[in-house]
Amino acid sequence: MIDKLVEKIKKTNAPIEVGLDPMLSYVPDFVKEKAYKELGETLEGAAEAIWQFNKAIVDATYDLIPAVKPQIAMYEQFGIPGLIAFKKTVDYCHEKDLIVIGDIKRGDIGSTSGAYATGHLGKVTVGSKSYYGFDEDFVTINPYMGTDSVQPFIDVAIPEKKGMFILTKTSNPSSGEFQDRLVDGRPLYELVAEKVVSWGEQHMGKCGYSYVGAVVGATYPEMGAVLRKLMPKSFILVPGYGAQGAKGSDLTNYFNEDGLGAIVNSSRGIIAAYKQPKYEKFGAAGFADAARAAVIDMQQDIASALK
Amino acid sequence: MIDKLVEKIKKTNAPIEVGLDPMLSYVPDFVKEKAYKELGETLEGAAEAIWQFNKAIVDATYDLIPAVKPQIAMYEQFGIPGLIAFKKTVDYCHEKDLIVIGDIKRGDIGSTSGAYATGHLGKVTVGSKSYYGFDEDFVTINPYMGTDSVQPFIDVAIPEKKGMFILTKTSNPSSGEFQDRLVDGRPLYELVAEKVVSWGEQHMGKCGYSYVGAVVGATYPEMGAVLRKLMPKSFILVPGYGAQGAKGSDLTNYFNEDGLGAIVNSSRGIIAAYKQPKYEKFGAAGFADAARAAVIDMQQDIASALK
Repeated sequence: MIDKLVEKIKKTNAPIEVGLDPMLSYVPDFVKEKAYKELGETLEGAAEAIWQFNKAIVDATYDLIPAVKPQIAMYEQFGIPGLIAFKKTVDYCHEKDLIVIGDIKRGDIGSTSGAYATGHLGKVTVGSKSYYGFDEDFVTINPYMGTDSVQPFIDVAIPEKKGMFILTKTSNPSSGEFQDRLVDGRPLYELVAEKVVSWGEQHMGKCGYSYVGAVVGATYPEMGAVLRKLMPKSFILVPGYGAQGAKGSDLTNYFNEDGLGAIVNSSRGIIAAYKQPKYEKFGAAGFADAARAAVIDMQQDIASALK
Repeated sequence: MIDKLVEKIKKTNAPIEVGLDPMLSYVPDFVKEKAYKELGETLEGAAEAIWQFNKAIVDATYDLIPAVKPQIAMYEQFGIPGLIAFKKTVDYCHEKDLIVIGDIKRGDIGSTSGAYATGHLGKVTVGSKSYYGFDEDFVTINPYMGTDSVQPFIDVAIPEKKGMFILTKTSNPSSGEFQDRLVDGRPLYELVAEKVVSWGEQHMGKCGYSYVGAVVGATYPEMGAVLRKLMPKSFILVPGYGAQGAKGSDLTNYFNEDGLGAIVNSSRGIIAAYKQPKYEKFGAAGFADAARAAVIDMQQDIASALK
C-alpha cells in the first residue's frame, strides 16, 4: 500500500488526501431533509445523510486524489448507524480505487492493540472462516503506551501489505504540553520519531518508504523540518492545512528532495468548501463541485510551493 | 457517577471492576457452537457468542461488583456486529445497575475529541431530536495530544454527571518508553498526573473525588504510591491485577487512607477463570460460576491487603 500510495501520488501529482469528516453541520440541508424524510430524525437518518454527503464528495474528487482519510470519531458519534456509514464509506472508496487511511488514533496494550489492528487492517477468525472488520489500508496510532502497543499493528499490517502513521507531533494548539517537553535536552516528539524509524526500518516498500509513517501537523513547520530529516524514509501524514491555518508554503519542509514523503490532509477546507466565500458561487446544491474546485486549488497551491 | 461509583464500592466492599474483554478463545465451545448454529461462522455468529458469554458473566457477578469495564477493541475486531454486541453489553449492564467504564482510550484534537465524547458519554443532536450513541458512564482517554484533546470530554461528561480516566502510567511492559522519560528531572507520567489534577479540580463529586481520574497500572506499585500522593482526589483505575501479574498486596499503594480512591480491574482472571487450574472444577459449562468464584476470591484478596 505504501507503494500504491506513492504511485497514485505521482499519477495525480497530488500529495493530498480528502478528510471525510462529515460533521452534520457541513451537510447541506437538502441532503439532510431527504435522509430524514426517509428515515426520520434518527441516528439512522443522520448516518444516511453523512453517507450520501460522502458519496457525492467522493464521486466529485476521486479522479484527482490518491487517498481519503475518514475520521472515525465523526461516525462513532452517531453510534452503530454512524459506524455502518463509516464502513460503507470505506468500501465505496475502495470501489473507486482510493487508498483509505482510517484516522482512528487507537493504541492499547499488546493483545488489545492486536484486536484493534485485526478489526481495522486484518482479518478476524471465526471458526473455520475469517473476515475483514473495517478493512482500511492505513490507520493512525497513538504511541503513548510504547512499542508493545505499536508492534501488534505492524504484525497484522505487514502480511496484508498495509501500513500506519504514528502520532508524532500533532497539529493542535495543546500538542506541545507533553510532546514538546524536553527529555535529555530533546523534545519528546523527536524520541517518538526515532521510534517511528526503528519500528519501520524492517518494513520498507519498494518505493523506498516504510510502511510505518508519522503524523506531523502542518501548523508546526519548523518542527516539521527537523522531523523530516530525522525520518527520511518515513512518509509523513500532514494534517492542519486549510481550516487549521497552514498554507502550501508551510508544507515544503515536510517533503523530501524527490518531491515525495508527505501527504497533506484537508477536511473542512474541502468537504465544506461551499461554505467559504471563495466557493459560495457553487451554493449548497453544488457542494460536491465546490469540493472538487477546492481540491484543484489545493493541488495547485502545493504544487507551486514544491516547485 | 463518581458518587455512585463510591457508594457502590462501599456497599459491595469490592473496589473491583470486571473487564468484559471477551476474546473468542475465552468463550466455551458450547456457547460458540450454539451461536454458529444459529448465525453461522460469521461476524454475527461471533458477536452473538461474545454477547451470550458476557450476559452469563454479568448475571453471575453483578450483585458482587460496582462496575464493569468492557474493552471496545475486543468488539471492534468483529466490525459492526461486534460493536452491536458492545452496545448490547453496555445496555444490559445498565439494566443490572452496573456502572460501565468504556475502555476506549480515545483522544484527538478539539472537535474530533468532542465527537468521541458525544458518541460515548453524551447525546448527539439530529434535527430536533437527540440520542445517546454508546452511553457509557466513564471512558478512558489518551492524553498524548494535551489539554485541548481532553477538555471536550470534560465539557460533554460533566453536564451528564459522567467521568473519565486519563492514561497516566499504563500497565504494559513498554509503558516506560515514553511515560518514564525524565522532563526537568521528573518522569512524564508525573506531568500527566499534575494535569489530571488540574483538569479535575473544578469537577468534584460530593464524595470528595473528582470526575476526572487516572489509569495507573498495578504492575508498577512504586510509581503507584507516588501517583497516589500526587493525585489525592483523583480516582485511580488500576489494570494489571491477576493475569498481568499483580496481587492484592501490590495494590495498597493505590488506595487512600479512607480505603477508597482506586478501582481494580481484572479481565481474563475473571471471565476466563474456568481455564485456570484453581477453578477447573467448574468446567467449561460452569464458566460463569467460575467467574463468580474468582470475583469473590479477588474481593477477599484485596480486602485483606487493605486491612
